[in-house]
Amino acid sequence: MKKVIKNGTIVTATDQFQADIEIENGVISLIGENLSTQGSEVIDAKGCYIFPGGIDPHTHLDMPFGGTVTKDDFETGTIAAAYGGTTTIIDFCLTNKGEPLKKAIDTWHAKSKNKAVIDYGFHLMISEVNEDVLNELPSIIDNEGITSFKVFMAYKNVFQADDETLFRTLIAAKELGALVMVHAENGDVIDYLTNKALENGNTEPIYHALTRPPEIEGEATGRAATFTGLANSQLYVVHVSCADAARKIAEARDKGIDVWGETCPQYLVLDQSYLERPNFEGAKYVWSPPLREKWNQEVLWNALKTGQLQTIGSDQCSFDFNGQKDLGRDDFSKIPNGGPIIEDRLSILFSEGVKKGRISLNQFVDITSTRIAKLFGLYPKKGTIAVGVDADVVIFDPTIERVISAESHHMAVDYNAFEGMKVIGEPVSVLSRGEFVIRDKKFVGKIGSGQYLKRAKYGERNHTNESESLTM
Amino acid sequence: MKKVIKNGTIVTATDQFQADIEIENGVISLIGENLSTQGSEVIDAKGCYIFPGGIDPHTHLDMPFGGTVTKDDFETGTIAAAYGGTTTIIDFCLTNKGEPLKKAIDTWHAKSKNKAVIDYGFHLMISEVNEDVLNELPSIIDNEGITSFKVFMAYKNVFQADDETLFRTLIAAKELGALVMVHAENGDVIDYLTNKALENGNTEPIYHALTRPPEIEGEATGRAATFTGLANSQLYVVHVSCADAARKIAEARDKGIDVWGETCPQYLVLDQSYLERPNFEGAKYVWSPPLREKWNQEVLWNALKTGQLQTIGSDQCSFDFNGQKDLGRDDFSKIPNGGPIIEDRLSILFSEGVKKGRISLNQFVDITSTRIAKLFGLYPKKGTIAVGVDADVVIFDPTIERVISAESHHMAVDYNAFEGMKVIGEPVSVLSRGEFVIRDKKFVGKIGSGQYLKRAKYGERNHTNESESLTM
Amino acid sequence: MKKVIKNGTIVTATDQFQADIEIENGVISLIGENLSTQGSEVIDAKGCYIFPGGIDPHTHLDMPFGGTVTKDDFETGTIAAAYGGTTTIIDFCLTNKGEPLKKAIDTWHAKSKNKAVIDYGFHLMISEVNEDVLNELPSIIDNEGITSFKVFMAYKNVFQADDETLFRTLIAAKELGALVMVHAENGDVIDYLTNKALENGNTEPIYHALTRPPEIEGEATGRAATFTGLANSQLYVVHVSCADAARKIAEARDKGIDVWGETCPQYLVLDQSYLERPNFEGAKYVWSPPLREKWNQEVLWNALKTGQLQTIGSDQCSFDFNGQKDLGRDDFSKIPNGGPIIEDRLSILFSEGVKKGRISLNQFVDITSTRIAKLFGLYPKKGTIAVGVDADVVIFDPTIERVISAESHHMAVDYNAFEGMKVIGEPVSVLSRGEFVIRDKKFVGKIGSGQYLKRAKYGERNHTNESESLTM
Amino acid sequence: MKKVIKNGTIVTATDQFQADIEIENGVISLIGENLSTQGSEVIDAKGCYIFPGGIDPHTHLDMPFGGTVTKDDFETGTIAAAYGGTTTIIDFCLTNKGEPLKKAIDTWHAKSKNKAVIDYGFHLMISEVNEDVLNELPSIIDNEGITSFKVFMAYKNVFQADDETLFRTLIAAKELGALVMVHAENGDVIDYLTNKALENGNTEPIYHALTRPPEIEGEATGRAATFTGLANSQLYVVHVSCADAARKIAEARDKGIDVWGETCPQYLVLDQSYLERPNFEGAKYVWSPPLREKWNQEVLWNALKTGQLQTIGSDQCSFDFNGQKDLGRDDFSKIPNGGPIIEDRLSILFSEGVKKGRISLNQFVDITSTRIAKLFGLYPKKGTIAVGVDADVVIFDPTIERVISAESHHMAVDYNAFEGMKVIGEPVSVLSRGEFVIRDKKFVGKIGSGQYLKRAKYGERNHTNESESLTM
Repeated sequence: MKKVIKNGTIVTATDQFQADIEIENGVISLIGENLSTQGSEVIDAKGCYIFPGGIDPHTHLDMPFGGTVTKDDFETGTIAAAYGGTTTIIDFCLTNKGEPLKKAIDTWHAKSKNKAVIDYGFHLMISEVNEDVLNELPSIIDNEGITSFKVFMAYKNVFQADDETLFRTLIAAKELGALVMVHAENGDVIDYLTNKALENGNTEPIYHALTRPPEIEGEATGRAATFTGLANSQLYVVHVSCADAARKIAEARDKGIDVWGETCPQYLVLDQSYLERPNFEGAKYVWSPPLREKWNQEVLWNALKTGQLQTIGSDQCSFDFNGQKDLGRDDFSKIPNGGPIIEDRLSILFSEGVKKGRISLNQFVDITSTRIAKLFGLYPKKGTIAVGVDADVVIFDPTIERVISAESHHMAVDYNAFEGMKVIGEPVSVLSRGEFVIRDKKFVGKIGSGQYLKRAKYGERNHTNESESLTM
Repeated sequence: MKKVIKNGTIVTATDQFQADIEIENGVISLIGENLSTQGSEVIDAKGCYIFPGGIDPHTHLDMPFGGTVTKDDFETGTIAAAYGGTTTIIDFCLTNKGEPLKKAIDTWHAKSKNKAVIDYGFHLMISEVNEDVLNELPSIIDNEGITSFKVFMAYKNVFQADDETLFRTLIAAKELGALVMVHAENGDVIDYLTNKALENGNTEPIYHALTRPPEIEGEATGRAATFTGLANSQLYVVHVSCADAARKIAEARDKGIDVWGETCPQYLVLDQSYLERPNFEGAKYVWSPPLREKWNQEVLWNALKTGQLQTIGSDQCSFDFNGQKDLGRDDFSKIPNGGPIIEDRLSILFSEGVKKGRISLNQFVDITSTRIAKLFGLYPKKGTIAVGVDADVVIFDPTIERVISAESHHMAVDYNAFEGMKVIGEPVSVLSRGEFVIRDKKFVGKIGSGQYLKRAKYGERNHTNESESLTM
Repeated sequence: MKKVIKNGTIVTATDQFQADIEIENGVISLIGENLSTQGSEVIDAKGCYIFPGGIDPHTHLDMPFGGTVTKDDFETGTIAAAYGGTTTIIDFCLTNKGEPLKKAIDTWHAKSKNKAVIDYGFHLMISEVNEDVLNELPSIIDNEGITSFKVFMAYKNVFQADDETLFRTLIAAKELGALVMVHAENGDVIDYLTNKALENGNTEPIYHALTRPPEIEGEATGRAATFTGLANSQLYVVHVSCADAARKIAEARDKGIDVWGETCPQYLVLDQSYLERPNFEGAKYVWSPPLREKWNQEVLWNALKTGQLQTIGSDQCSFDFNGQKDLGRDDFSKIPNGGPIIEDRLSILFSEGVKKGRISLNQFVDITSTRIAKLFGLYPKKGTIAVGVDADVVIFDPTIERVISAESHHMAVDYNAFEGMKVIGEPVSVLSRGEFVIRDKKFVGKIGSGQYLKRAKYGERNHTNESESLTM
Repeated sequence: MKKVIKNGTIVTATDQFQADIEIENGVISLIGENLSTQGSEVIDAKGCYIFPGGIDPHTHLDMPFGGTVTKDDFETGTIAAAYGGTTTIIDFCLTNKGEPLKKAIDTWHAKSKNKAVIDYGFHLMISEVNEDVLNELPSIIDNEGITSFKVFMAYKNVFQADDETLFRTLIAAKELGALVMVHAENGDVIDYLTNKALENGNTEPIYHALTRPPEIEGEATGRAATFTGLANSQLYVVHVSCADAARKIAEARDKGIDVWGETCPQYLVLDQSYLERPNFEGAKYVWSPPLREKWNQEVLWNALKTGQLQTIGSDQCSFDFNGQKDLGRDDFSKIPNGGPIIEDRLSILFSEGVKKGRISLNQFVDITSTRIAKLFGLYPKKGTIAVGVDADVVIFDPTIERVISAESHHMAVDYNAFEGMKVIGEPVSVLSRGEFVIRDKKFVGKIGSGQYLKRAKYGERNHTNESESLTM
């Protein structure tokens, strides 16, 4: 049965206009004024925006880390995502040195299959580049549709790759048509400063921030960008937290280097002082990179506005305060890094960004959905409101006010880092390929209905017959 | 009678998809797959892109300058524009000190009425700010819908305004909701260098460039941007020609100052060496700012790509080589500044930009149309392909190859600055508010059918009932 | 009779060593260990540094301004200077449009002759450049030895020169061998903001700062530097007060432009908050450019350390608080600009700079004396401790602590802007051409003993027979 | 017997004046006009400059590298140095992982003792930082007077240290009072590009340059500077070859980070095109970092002029063309890196720098001697002309013209990289601690007369009783 969404205001990354939308067979088939509703289910979106479903390019669901496992799995995580208006996620598939990449991918398929309620894809972590890896990568791209590789410049002796590995990954990505993602912090310096702090008895959460100064995020970002230029490759810097790193990305782009930057809601609205909260509360705010001094926020907002940063990810990586975060009660370096944020990414950006005039409504759509779809080979199947695309649609009421709280959120964890924050604007209903996942603020989806997404190569369009490439 | 455009690929500033478009009463009424064509005129756009009509924010038609008058008037100029895929222009209305602004505007209405074949608006030149001017401006904005003011920092003793005038214009524009445009070159230095060159017997066209070095374009651009920040106002820098000026705009934007930059096709594909052509041929390439050393081109292209520059104007200002340009045969300072370029703005940007991979297809639309519509209060009436907007549409065949030449162009002048340049891609048919102006590469429009456009204030949407402002 | 200074530590802009100095006929004749004292007056400098006498490149003595006259004249001013270790000043000779420059210079000779107790020279203000001025300048340089021209970019309708005047001055200076000095603030913007503030009833001293924002000091500095590059000339920016201006100077120097920067003690240790002091006390801190937010201080100190700024002047321009500063009690724009600082320039720089490790002892000498002598054509007659140079010598005890106060200072004004500030280090005795001016902290000089100094052209050595030019 | 140098022009880093110099017991005892010559050997320096002896902070004498040994040892190397006006060198002592540092130092003592004809000191290479190293370092500083540590960021699997080692070295240096020196190139990227070039059959010398692009020198320089700021330590970047690296140093200094930069004559006058010379001639120009595109030269010169770079070293590292350089005839990566330049460092800088107006005469002295003495704990024993300092003196005739050639040079190698270059200015006589080493252009010194120099800690004065530290 067809559906017709009436009376809404359609918003794309460039346009805003009132029109009806007809959905048939899971895709958008018609856009127009006063569409016929004969034989269709009618959805009234009066007073609401119609956004393309949010795409979260940065989640860690059901992921082992530091002796524990992130609390949200592909079921709770994607349900929470859907509540927040996100209809696609791309999760990070961790790999182990010396093992076939395919093995890791299969593990991730096992984690997600029959659980996710929205569509999903995988990024692939690269921790070494050798003949085996180089031989396996083409099939990963062609058969699995995984076209983005993640390299860690931090987490010494755990995930950290050396410069040769990063450079070789960039070279390989260029040849294969993949986008390289980096966690840009200098792990060697962090390792030294961390050990030094602990030796000096400085064990509280604030030392997490003090041992990861912004300078070394800037340094690593600049280094990765320089490599990208030399390799004539493409780079996506995840979770940019500070002015220093944003500046390095802008400088690289000014030189014509193909570098993109993502920031996260936490860096836009929280700051380093949260880590000093008493009674170990600071542990709730342990992300890597850490929260920064407050003045960085305005720089990040302006970078989003001028296009020097292009996307927002959640870096969802949730751990309970009790039982997980408190592994680091006596040693900040043992606090599991990360937090629960998959649910409120859109609300926070809308409320703090659009409503406060820092970014435009079109930029909101671009930052949360369209640009991500284009960068990661999902466009035009995902990422916009247009004829022929998947009907991943968010009906968003810009007038609803609510307070973010662990008591009402849908993530599996026992706290919310944005507890008490007032936001304006909320998704009312959310459709994935034309089917309701959230309807009138209630989950009505089906566990396991989410599909795995094979993604197009970097710079190519997804699921089209056109020979022309996607241009960014 | 309705029209349906079938089989084309719709391209907006963000999207690209195959769908049919229905036009009714001059506006786009429906977008969808396999639209019913019953009772409609059908236009086949197979193999073609459907672009929103180009908007040229920078034309000088029928304008007196240096003792002569630009050759193209609102008739020949807009016909040529339409051939090239431009469906809206905004022309500069020159004012005279001490005279009511309205008088100048009336003069411009007289020049354009019953002549233009596409829609048009006016920018207003501001050469002084006094009580009379400040008292008159509100009615100009409200009654005339002129919401952009132009200030010249060059042309000493002719158009040049002093710093106080520029600053007061920015303050007034902020209060009134207008966008200030500047010609950013330091007229005092130019004046000195010009006199010095002539004293030394250096009269050839190349001295036009040598007496207007890029440093003083950068200087003036930075000065205007600084003023804009202090006035908390908004600025649009016209015809950015060089790296130095582009850098100043980027620096201002990094500081959160609301500054925008336009470049022109001539700065992207021609260079200073053209001014050295023998037999006074150099005079054909006399623009202000002048053509620059070739390396600047790549900087400008990259600035368009990264969004540090946002639009492209033609700076159409045409003079015959014989009879007009040759006024300066013995004195480069007497060569009328400017050239004929209103016709090929889109073709050059498509061919050199999109086809050569320097910008994306979506950026092409944004740069030539959408962003301009938003900045100058025309959006969403103009500037995009969406339901409810004016059916200003270009059917563009991306495969046609042709050679630019004065012999085949439609402008009224006796030369073409891009003579012999091969371009790929050409508008086949062009509609203005749903009516053909160009059909199958022939002019089929009606003289005088173009309408004068009252424009919305800066940051507001044009012709909507919504209270919400336009967000950029 | 010869003099021998024993047991001191000689400090030059590069060296520091213990040795005796013999003075004969007003010049240094011998430097060595254990010099013979036979037939010589012996001065014991045990525990003291021997510095070359300070040179103050920026004083306004006996100068009419805003309907009043600076309080210190060439007698009180130079006595105070000597107390503070300064043995040479260069004062600004104001000129009037339409009058011969020579007339202004004669006025300044009349003010200074038979009054000054230390040697002195003049800078010449340029307010217009026309045939008369250009014809007169060569004789000013050759006969008067005035080789530095001052141009004001601020003080609209009073001193302010337009861009053409500044540019022509730079061109002329290049040809004639003079150094152009600028007061770099945008007078047009200041004028507007001042009038606006007063219209709004904002009359308190703090509005002096708020109507002269740092951005427009940076703007004017960058503009002047750009002109200097185009003119291939040389520039000295007086009283740099803020990071923005310091940055513009550094950028110009990076491009190879010959630009130099001076700051003043007030910008290094006082800040904008002083202007908010109650009971009109803020008026004591009214300088132009104004005092800035405190964070600028560290930037200026670092610029002195790295050589991006090169000198320190006092900008001595003293007015009584009662009877002069209070002309502006109801209107900040009528507060005479400037303050009394000729006396404590060296003490403040030594105490806050050297003792706090911000600059080296050698840099102290360079900044207060040597570099100034070289830039303004006084070297090697003045500005160092070496054989053959004028015995302008300061015996400086680095251990004396004192508190700056109007009660104890020797300037003619009724307040001191640094009242209550503790400084370490004080000149004990000061010699000018081998004669004591200050001896054991008492003035022992002779009124009128100071000589007028004809200065060498920019880039040339003073009073030598060598053909080789001075290299900086 | 005392010596008196008559009629010369003494030049220090700040001064230039005519005076006689008396030398007694190896030190300068008196400076004055018309000194008594009774009982003294008189040296006539008419028409000559008297410079403090040059200090070469960067030599590799008798050093094993790539399976061979540098051709010049401490005898031939120091004789050649003396011919060129250098009276002190600081050579790099290579260490081996796992072995006591003292062992390496003893090896270097053995190489130099009874051979050097001028004074010398050692830098110490640090390739690992562990408990053994940290325990040994204090005695190295106190007993050996070695107060500078060298870390290599390039030469993967040979000298290259990782980031942790560099950071820990900076921390240790801060605590111990040492200066950290870095070879700043990213060895990982070089290693990859080198292997790739060889795989592709690109074996010629030019590929040495093409596999070490300037971007990765800039990257490593910025990284080291960032670490220095975080460690609050001090850094000296050796052999800066390009604009990119110079810019990074300037940026760090602007932030108040204690970073210094050295360049070398080869980067100032030679360029990348030399590596393309036929018949394997390019191998003569293989330095690391490599010679760069010619435009970098002007940037480096300007950086010396403005003080953004502070010193010049030779990076003397000589290999015969026949028998050593040709180890790499079939593989550029096997060409021993380095060249013979210890002899002509001063001549080239004087001729190309001072005579061409790029730097001043005083800057010449600072760059070649004074600043180096201060940075490396030799001042004031070395590095200037003043009473009480070592009589290391160069009598330099600025009018002699000569042509650099392997036929006439005094280094032990069979070619000269500057073959055929005309220079103006030559040392005529050179004294070390008051004794002639070179007299009238002939070597008259004694093999082994050079003394080992224990150096003061960073920021302290050498061989004085004063408690006050050296301030830079």
